[in-house]
Amino acid sequence: MRILGIDPGFGIVGFGVIEKSANGLDAIDYGVITTPKELEFSKRLAIISDSIADLIKQFSPDEIAIEELYFSSNVKTAIQVAHARGVIMLECHRAGVPAYEYNPLHIKQAVTGHSKADKPQMQQMAAILLGLAKPPKPDDAADALAIAICHAQTNQVLKRK
Amino acid sequence: MRILGIDPGFGIVGFGVIEKSANGLDAIDYGVITTPKELEFSKRLAIISDSIADLIKQFSPDEIAIEELYFSSNVKTAIQVAHARGVIMLECHRAGVPAYEYNPLHIKQAVTGHSKADKPQMQQMAAILLGLAKPPKPDDAADALAIAICHAQTNQVLKRK
Repeated sequence: MRILGIDPGFGIVGFGVIEKSANGLDAIDYGVITTPKELEFSKRLAIISDSIADLIKQFSPDEIAIEELYFSSNVKTAIQVAHARGVIMLECHRAGVPAYEYNPLHIKQAVTGHSKADKPQMQQMAAILLGLAKPPKPDDAADALAIAICHAQTNQVLKRK
Repeated sequence: MRILGIDPGFGIVGFGVIEKSANGLDAIDYGVITTPKELEFSKRLAIISDSIADLIKQFSPDEIAIEELYFSSNVKTAIQVAHARGVIMLECHRAGVPAYEYNPLHIKQAVTGHSKADKPQMQQMAAILLGLAKPPKPDDAADALAIAICHAQTNQVLKRK
């Protein structure tokens, strides 16, 4: 089964494609979609929308896993990310690929076994699970791989949106 | 000049189409797009996206005016509305129609002349300005007409996104 993990954002969207087989997990590809900040906001949304559509076309994932929106103090940023996340969810829906949502705590727990893992631990663990020689970079791509791993490891599906 | 006003939401999206001419303002059409809450969230986003595309096709607006996201206490609702608003902004961008954003205070001021107007005053004023026999209903459609009126009345364009 092929899983596309997405770490939503409006300046940087992380993506990670993994394959789950009897032999375990393998990384197929990972990277980031970036949108230049000097562009109009709606143009940036269009870049994200088109890029997600292209990724789905290129990798034909069976399922998509996307991080739930986590917001603490910066509501303004959360609102902007939510605009982008709406566009990403729409694109997954349009492509007809089931998308599942996971919160950050659940992702940490699924990847490392405990919910207090820090970023380097998460990245090391992702590298080990995917058979990569070194931790995946950049951070947003590593996060997206972790989301995909989380989906692969989660027996009980939490929520389908 | 034809203006489409949009009051963003995910359960109810208000719309109002007005024509600005030498004779003043006229209401062409107004109403609401609703999305059933029992549907998956991404399906609701798809309904909003398709409906906005249909409205633009049907009425061929020259410009679109959309309310800025206003959030006070309920961050969760604001985040959901932002998902829908991202999809709406993308659809306006895809249709190639310039979209402008206005905040609630500016809309009140532009429609009634003061920023402390209440909802009934806004609706009465909208009816007078558009030559309607009675205040437009439902509320979200009336809000969308007010946003369109605001754009028609605003000489200095605030922000294009």
